[in-house]
Amino acid sequence: MAPKVEVEGVTDTSSVVTRDPLMTNGATRSVFTVDDVLPHRQKSKPPPTVVAGFANASMFKSEGCLKKPKSQSFAHRLSGESKARSPSSLKGAMKYSRSGTISLCGGLPSSDYFPFEEISTKLPVPPEFSDAEAVVSGRTVSTGKHDAQQGKSLYDLSIALNYGQSMGPGALLRFITEHTEIVHNPPYSDWEICMTAGSTSALEIALRMFTERGHYVMTEEYTFSSAIETAAPMGCKMLGIKMDADGMLPDDLDHILSTWDESSRRAPKPFLVYTVPTGQNPTASTQSLERRKQIYAVAEKHDLFILEDEPYYFLQMEPFISGETHSVPTPFKPAAVADFLSNLVPSYLSIDSSGRVLRLDSFSKIIAPGSRCGWVTGQPQVIERFIRHSEVSVQQPAGFTLTALYNLLEQNWGHKGFLEWLMYIRAEYTRRRDIIVNACETYLPTEVASWVPPKAGMFHWINVDITQHPLYRSRSRDGAIDHATLLEIEESVFLAGVEQNVLIARGSWFRAQRGSDAKLFFRTTFAAAPADKIRDAIRNMGIAIRKEFGLEEKQNGHVK
Amino acid sequence: MAPKVEVEGVTDTSSVVTRDPLMTNGATRSVFTVDDVLPHRQKSKPPPTVVAGFANASMFKSEGCLKKPKSQSFAHRLSGESKARSPSSLKGAMKYSRSGTISLCGGLPSSDYFPFEEISTKLPVPPEFSDAEAVVSGRTVSTGKHDAQQGKSLYDLSIALNYGQSMGPGALLRFITEHTEIVHNPPYSDWEICMTAGSTSALEIALRMFTERGHYVMTEEYTFSSAIETAAPMGCKMLGIKMDADGMLPDDLDHILSTWDESSRRAPKPFLVYTVPTGQNPTASTQSLERRKQIYAVAEKHDLFILEDEPYYFLQMEPFISGETHSVPTPFKPAAVADFLSNLVPSYLSIDSSGRVLRLDSFSKIIAPGSRCGWVTGQPQVIERFIRHSEVSVQQPAGFTLTALYNLLEQNWGHKGFLEWLMYIRAEYTRRRDIIVNACETYLPTEVASWVPPKAGMFHWINVDITQHPLYRSRSRDGAIDHATLLEIEESVFLAGVEQNVLIARGSWFRAQRGSDAKLFFRTTFAAAPADKIRDAIRNMGIAIRKEFGLEEKQNGHVK
Repeated sequence: MAPKVEVEGVTDTSSVVTRDPLMTNGATRSVFTVDDVLPHRQKSKPPPTVVAGFANASMFKSEGCLKKPKSQSFAHRLSGESKARSPSSLKGAMKYSRSGTISLCGGLPSSDYFPFEEISTKLPVPPEFSDAEAVVSGRTVSTGKHDAQQGKSLYDLSIALNYGQSMGPGALLRFITEHTEIVHNPPYSDWEICMTAGSTSALEIALRMFTERGHYVMTEEYTFSSAIETAAPMGCKMLGIKMDADGMLPDDLDHILSTWDESSRRAPKPFLVYTVPTGQNPTASTQSLERRKQIYAVAEKHDLFILEDEPYYFLQMEPFISGETHSVPTPFKPAAVADFLSNLVPSYLSIDSSGRVLRLDSFSKIIAPGSRCGWVTGQPQVIERFIRHSEVSVQQPAGFTLTALYNLLEQNWGHKGFLEWLMYIRAEYTRRRDIIVNACETYLPTEVASWVPPKAGMFHWINVDITQHPLYRSRSRDGAIDHATLLEIEESVFLAGVEQNVLIARGSWFRAQRGSDAKLFFRTTFAAAPADKIRDAIRNMGIAIRKEFGLEEKQNGHVK
Repeated sequence: MAPKVEVEGVTDTSSVVTRDPLMTNGATRSVFTVDDVLPHRQKSKPPPTVVAGFANASMFKSEGCLKKPKSQSFAHRLSGESKARSPSSLKGAMKYSRSGTISLCGGLPSSDYFPFEEISTKLPVPPEFSDAEAVVSGRTVSTGKHDAQQGKSLYDLSIALNYGQSMGPGALLRFITEHTEIVHNPPYSDWEICMTAGSTSALEIALRMFTERGHYVMTEEYTFSSAIETAAPMGCKMLGIKMDADGMLPDDLDHILSTWDESSRRAPKPFLVYTVPTGQNPTASTQSLERRKQIYAVAEKHDLFILEDEPYYFLQMEPFISGETHSVPTPFKPAAVADFLSNLVPSYLSIDSSGRVLRLDSFSKIIAPGSRCGWVTGQPQVIERFIRHSEVSVQQPAGFTLTALYNLLEQNWGHKGFLEWLMYIRAEYTRRRDIIVNACETYLPTEVASWVPPKAGMFHWINVDITQHPLYRSRSRDGAIDHATLLEIEESVFLAGVEQNVLIARGSWFRAQRGSDAKLFFRTTFAAAPADKIRDAIRNMGIAIRKEFGLEEKQNGHVK
């Protein structure tokens, strides 16, 4: 259950107070809905429409949000590098600017020299979301160079294509702030937002903000390989926390922290948790609300800071039913937005009463990876440090991206259309999940291969029983093999797939503590290939695994 | 003189060998011209047109380039962090992909779920570059979702909006490689290129590649404030090298290095030079070819590595003539491309026989800052390390940017149109430079204010004689003041400007070794404000300086 919208006999929806399922003590807190957006905008100040205009989330929050208690400080968790950042001298001078001021200060080129007069985007109109429908009935939405100056829009190319503030332009920051209230409704008032150049970049910045060389970062025992590869050169070691199909185990997290011995571990007690709570990469595990609350309680007990990396948050699916494939009608028929939201597992951000969560959102999996754009939400001093780092690295998401997102989200879809799109791609990924899991049931030898059908995301995690591999049998001593043999078996299965024209990802790439694997896993994705190719690939992978495990004879008889 | 194109009686221009002014020993080396591009493309392999297709500069170089000697290794200059980077496990798996392979490996979403069917850009057509002309006669160039798959183009939204390789898509990497040969013609064969998310991001990556905490980075004594602010939290100190109107002084650089004492300096002998050779920020100084050769010789002597940050390279101007303003005809009349190129001061990259230069180029000042896109060029192992870092940070420039640049550079302008555009904006900046310098001659009190007219860039650096300020007179002891008083005077002049509705940048912000200022400088820019506002601002600044320095009585009589 997520921030559910239950309007109780209230007609003015602009400041409703509703029962919130996260308030287990029966208390109420303000909830902000899609229907509240327009009335709230009408009585609020619009975002700035000048080049590099300053904005922040607090400018766009509802009254109910602003009345909540404030967050705690987490300054004691910041790295030396992060603490040492000074504000930009040049950006600081902007505070002296007032109406009538002529600035010869910042080297911002005149928009006269941007060789783009207009950018037009052909976009799907809800509910005709499919490619084929959008080609026929797509709507063209344009942004010109001086639309804002001419009063036609809140954003234009003269703003988008110049330097901007690192937190993002007001016109989009407002949309994201409203989205955050609608979806997450954080329990504290002073959360802030900074737009990012994608979550890969945001994670690098976050790790530099919260770690020193030699620190441990706690994460699921299998985790996103790029996160490991980002942290390693910084001198950060990943510490794998045991997990089940519901993700990280709070007891193991608590046990490790409660028994931490700095001298034997040769590292200070860790405090940073990196987690992908929903449709985890690579295992597809999805933490239940109960699990999230348990982990958050451990975080409160040990004063942890949580990086909540949620690219797949909206890809939460209907349960898998063996042999069935959910269909996606054309045109798509979206359910009510409130129902969709109420069925999402609530985020850490939505239970974070202290401000100890930095949530990473990304447009990559819900709009397009090429946007190189996302946003982080968290405690205001943490976001301020994130902005300072952005100013001297990525600066801001690309203006061409921001223009495309403005056309799409503000000028075409609005919040309702965006949430309907999210329902649409969730339905598409559900269908794809059904295809891959059914193909696995049909083609993989269940004598050795096993899995849990994913509840979210774009990955399917397959265990292959290593003890039945011929190399294991010949080399194991006392029921165990050395790690080199495990990798040899893993490579052999991987290459058997290559031989059958299938590429899958090897489990060891995702092992948080590299070199500590004991089981054999493979990650497959159902995001990319067309449905028939997914089936072909899984069928071929079945052939490869049978060959590898000497199960070839069974093939004819046992394939369903 | 730059890589000048002097075709001597050669009719097949695809592999000409011409005299190159950089070869002072009378030798010849191959030169690649705009006219060579098409014939070279016709006999070469086209760039890949698949999602995340691998490309590099060497795929697109001319035969003449590939025959040059190879670079040296600079692996000994890499930081521990950079050396520790492993290649991405997931990207490494791509090498097993062949025709017919179905990948279930990387989590690349299907382009079916990118809600953009087409992106159109309205672009100026040479020579009708001005905004007013482009509004009327601009050309609309579009990229659709499946143009490449349909054989209509080398690039489309299904590629651009998905994940890509960090060095950039082949279709643009080819353009930039050709541009690099045309403009810089590096003296070694194996240079490589990686596209960047802008030079601010590229500089952060480069500093992390070449520095450790406690290292010094050598730079001009006044340098880009953001570079100082990027380096400081990494624990890097800037070491200011003395400079004149031609930039950094090679003798001072050599002296500092030759007399470096590790124990008294408490730091290892530095080896990294950060320089903005052309239209330097903030001083506008531009190094002559002679000066560059002298500095390069010092770099060879002490085995230095040079970060050549060149956002303003193409903004090299005609000499300033007092009282005159260069006009920009409408439509613009571009000179011959070869003449334009031959008048550019050659880059460090073009004299770098060893491979000890990493050149940073940016689209920010020549196309638009909102592109958040540029490229680095250098020695292949250095670029490989840069790519590894990009993979776990910015990943790649935004696909919306890449689409816009592809529409502009490949589908609309070509190399000739791009160079003509650069001539156009150079002419516009020349006119703006004339306006600000003439305004300074008219309105600033030359009793205290002095300057050198800029030869390049977008900044005008003004010295104000601090010894004539009332506070200096009252506080100086033995002809000197303390630094706090200097800052007090600087702030007082700055605030006097604010009082007159003018914002300028304070010189102390740019002091490489903060706190070591001895003179009073202000940086103004002629990039942003319209011509009449530039004049107003300088007139008001004249009023402010006169008030500050007690020169008010002279105002009526002495203003020219």
